[in-house]
Amino acid sequence: MKQPETTLPLAYRLGIDTGHEPVIFLRSESPVARSEGFESMSRITVEVNDRKLLATLMIVYSELLEPGHAGLSEKAWRELKVKPGERLKLSHAPQIESLAFIRAKAFGHKLNRKQYNCVIRDIVDGLYMNVHLASFITACANGGLEPDEIVYLTEAMVNTGQRLEWDADIVVDKHCIGGLPGNRTSPIVVSILAANGLTIPKTSSRAITSPAGTADVMETMTNVDFTFEDLKSIVKETGGCLAWGGSVSLSPSDDILITVEKALDIDFEGQLIASILSKKIAAGSDRVLIDIPVGKTAKMRSKAAAEALSEQLVNTGKKLGIIVKVVLTDGSQPIGNGVGPALEAQDVLSVLRNEPHAPQDLKERALSLAGNLLELAEHVPVGRGYKLALDTLKSGQACKKFMQICMSQGGFCEPRTSSCTYAINTKTKAVISEIDNRQLARLAKLAGAPADKTAGIYLHAKVGDTVDVDQPLLTIHADSPGELEYALNYYLEHSDMILLKDVQ
Amino acid sequence: MKQPETTLPLAYRLGIDTGHEPVIFLRSESPVARSEGFESMSRITVEVNDRKLLATLMIVYSELLEPGHAGLSEKAWRELKVKPGERLKLSHAPQIESLAFIRAKAFGHKLNRKQYNCVIRDIVDGLYMNVHLASFITACANGGLEPDEIVYLTEAMVNTGQRLEWDADIVVDKHCIGGLPGNRTSPIVVSILAANGLTIPKTSSRAITSPAGTADVMETMTNVDFTFEDLKSIVKETGGCLAWGGSVSLSPSDDILITVEKALDIDFEGQLIASILSKKIAAGSDRVLIDIPVGKTAKMRSKAAAEALSEQLVNTGKKLGIIVKVVLTDGSQPIGNGVGPALEAQDVLSVLRNEPHAPQDLKERALSLAGNLLELAEHVPVGRGYKLALDTLKSGQACKKFMQICMSQGGFCEPRTSSCTYAINTKTKAVISEIDNRQLARLAKLAGAPADKTAGIYLHAKVGDTVDVDQPLLTIHADSPGELEYALNYYLEHSDMILLKDVQ
Repeated sequence: MKQPETTLPLAYRLGIDTGHEPVIFLRSESPVARSEGFESMSRITVEVNDRKLLATLMIVYSELLEPGHAGLSEKAWRELKVKPGERLKLSHAPQIESLAFIRAKAFGHKLNRKQYNCVIRDIVDGLYMNVHLASFITACANGGLEPDEIVYLTEAMVNTGQRLEWDADIVVDKHCIGGLPGNRTSPIVVSILAANGLTIPKTSSRAITSPAGTADVMETMTNVDFTFEDLKSIVKETGGCLAWGGSVSLSPSDDILITVEKALDIDFEGQLIASILSKKIAAGSDRVLIDIPVGKTAKMRSKAAAEALSEQLVNTGKKLGIIVKVVLTDGSQPIGNGVGPALEAQDVLSVLRNEPHAPQDLKERALSLAGNLLELAEHVPVGRGYKLALDTLKSGQACKKFMQICMSQGGFCEPRTSSCTYAINTKTKAVISEIDNRQLARLAKLAGAPADKTAGIYLHAKVGDTVDVDQPLLTIHADSPGELEYALNYYLEHSDMILLKDVQ
Repeated sequence: MKQPETTLPLAYRLGIDTGHEPVIFLRSESPVARSEGFESMSRITVEVNDRKLLATLMIVYSELLEPGHAGLSEKAWRELKVKPGERLKLSHAPQIESLAFIRAKAFGHKLNRKQYNCVIRDIVDGLYMNVHLASFITACANGGLEPDEIVYLTEAMVNTGQRLEWDADIVVDKHCIGGLPGNRTSPIVVSILAANGLTIPKTSSRAITSPAGTADVMETMTNVDFTFEDLKSIVKETGGCLAWGGSVSLSPSDDILITVEKALDIDFEGQLIASILSKKIAAGSDRVLIDIPVGKTAKMRSKAAAEALSEQLVNTGKKLGIIVKVVLTDGSQPIGNGVGPALEAQDVLSVLRNEPHAPQDLKERALSLAGNLLELAEHVPVGRGYKLALDTLKSGQACKKFMQICMSQGGFCEPRTSSCTYAINTKTKAVISEIDNRQLARLAKLAGAPADKTAGIYLHAKVGDTVDVDQPLLTIHADSPGELEYALNYYLEHSDMILLKDVQ
């Protein structure tokens, strides 16, 4: 139905953050809602000039909107790049053909390359509602994806985003399959590799279900949000970067799927592999080291499961033309002392600065990964990587490189500290026998991490350490008394997250 | 964190329809958002006096809300029964333990009775977001549910709602597994059964993915929305009812799941069986006749699939203590002439009134089902049901009973007619060889059905009929020119939905 220009509703920025899903608001009696037969929660194509997006409609039964106005959520306003005074053309959203593939997958059918391309293209184009994304994620979980389906999915994720290219013959990268609080090796590893002249364009995510992602940690010290061109010049200048992957649109479908995976608290193997490898391939890397911590409260609970995943990662990488090496590491307890963006940044800095109190487990983990990567890049013969990594750290070259990367990313500042803290002391002299990664991560999140950068947990001791009577076991850091109390209540209800054995 | 009474935000009715998911709106700088560390799209427990619900938070960055106010969506405002001037207590939503069962199901594990109870209880209590519902629905599709899982799911759905009880020894009911436009037998069948003194408390859904549900059709003639007590007195008075099931809270989880199934356009067998049987058991029925139309564009495409479903329905019924009988019927083309609420109501009335032009296929289908039900209820010996049903219809007893039920439901009015129509004529003399149910249903929906009660399609001829040159094949009915044009464009692009063979 053609709508005469003058009756088109005027775009109005309502200033509501509706998350990933764009929303359009219309008055119940608005002529366009009536003539087009729109209902609340129906899907609407919104057009302004040559820009277009699909939005969910919410009908307004109040004076919130002036007659003749159509409200837009923040996401819709930004995506459409609306200028005040512009009018919106509204129509029924088209049928989305690729939803049929999701239904097929839900019923256990295998999808082909073309079908994955359609699904991922439609996701990137914003055609899916969150419920469709949830259905796709769940459909892929059960029975998993066959090896070639993982390849198709990865390719589709790469093809629908931007792709970086480098002059270097070898481009390296690393990734850790999370689940281990405080395991913040990337800033150290990138600094060591880049200090040795290698190209390592590391982009990271923000936290998905954890108290901090590398991007959250780096953001306490420097900028992480760059355009595609900025990122290229940072890596050209320094050999590395420690940037947020979200705004450079490498594998953008992954960023969209992750928002829903977070709400579902679910991620399945095929999706995990495609997520990791698509980011690395899009970043232009061809040799990738993947760290899988194994432990009973880590993401990977058994060595067998980790080995199976490892094999899939290596084989999928091979089919996609990159070399993947996986190392299984100890995932029995957190790494470092801090859990939360700023607290982890402090750990990283103390390692890079060779400070005497620097957490040795973080240092050793980072050196081992850096050594492995130096060997994978054929920069040193096998067996000589660790030594070179250690020398690079000790000599201050790694710290210098880290600062150079931060300067190139816009400057460096020391991470801030939190405004509220609460120290939990032991009542008797005791030795720590076990730490539950999951409960500790949850504690840090209740304290406000990662949204509050300074919030989190500081562990004063680790497994095997003896803590004297009335000495601090851990300190909760929060930005508000409310969150401090939430976290404390959770700790008191789950104080076995740190298992103590009394020392006689 | 205890919040002092005076700083609690004042509830404000924003007048936004956010659908099934309640939403709370807070200004970005509101003290409670800051002290509690709330983020956009986080889940919030909203309390007012002793009422409580879980809502999704949308942060407001404009003057939409006055400082100190918290906006509520229509759903949240109604559910919380907020009175103006009341203040809201807000806190982080608790972790939902039953989501772990959904993850387990997504990975192909079997759930037990207790786990289904937890999931369904949490759904009814409003703890799930739409993405969680989508994940549950999808997780149950793949590999399906084992027979005892269907029993557990059905029981859980019954247990979480209200349950009707009747004095009668035998309580009958019918259900049709949709997919056949215009197949509106229920009003006729209920009238015949109740006219014979049987108890048939028929509650129906509104359309899910079809152009009309029985509740939508009945709503064009009488009220369908009753309290639990009202419904009891209607059935006590008349022996039957033709009511909407939604507001009497029989199997309320089903109503919630259906909203998301609609968005996903998916429904799987286990869920389908649980959905049907839970409603019937909750309505107090113990003998249920189920009509499964089979046809290549019906919901059930093959006889084998229909027979498999039929067996599962009968067996699940047995385990739940009710007698289920299934009849497979011809699903090759629509039943009756009208498709859409008011148009189907006109068909129903013409059959009940024994009008000469009444659609014979609808009449025969209804008589056959009514006859079967009379036999299932042991009201007549097997083989004598059809004759009694026909006599009841012919004598006017069925029509009288229908009017009595309508009066008991609040009165009867003739269905209205649409304001815009467009007749599609044949260009040559032709015989109709095939009608595509799915495309015809879609056409009726594009015309505005079921939201616009008078919208839909009127078929002037059916398979096997000959249509003369320039005679109408079908007429599109709509409430607005926009919808008429949408529907017409769709028809022109898919005019093979009615296959014609030229007659020489």
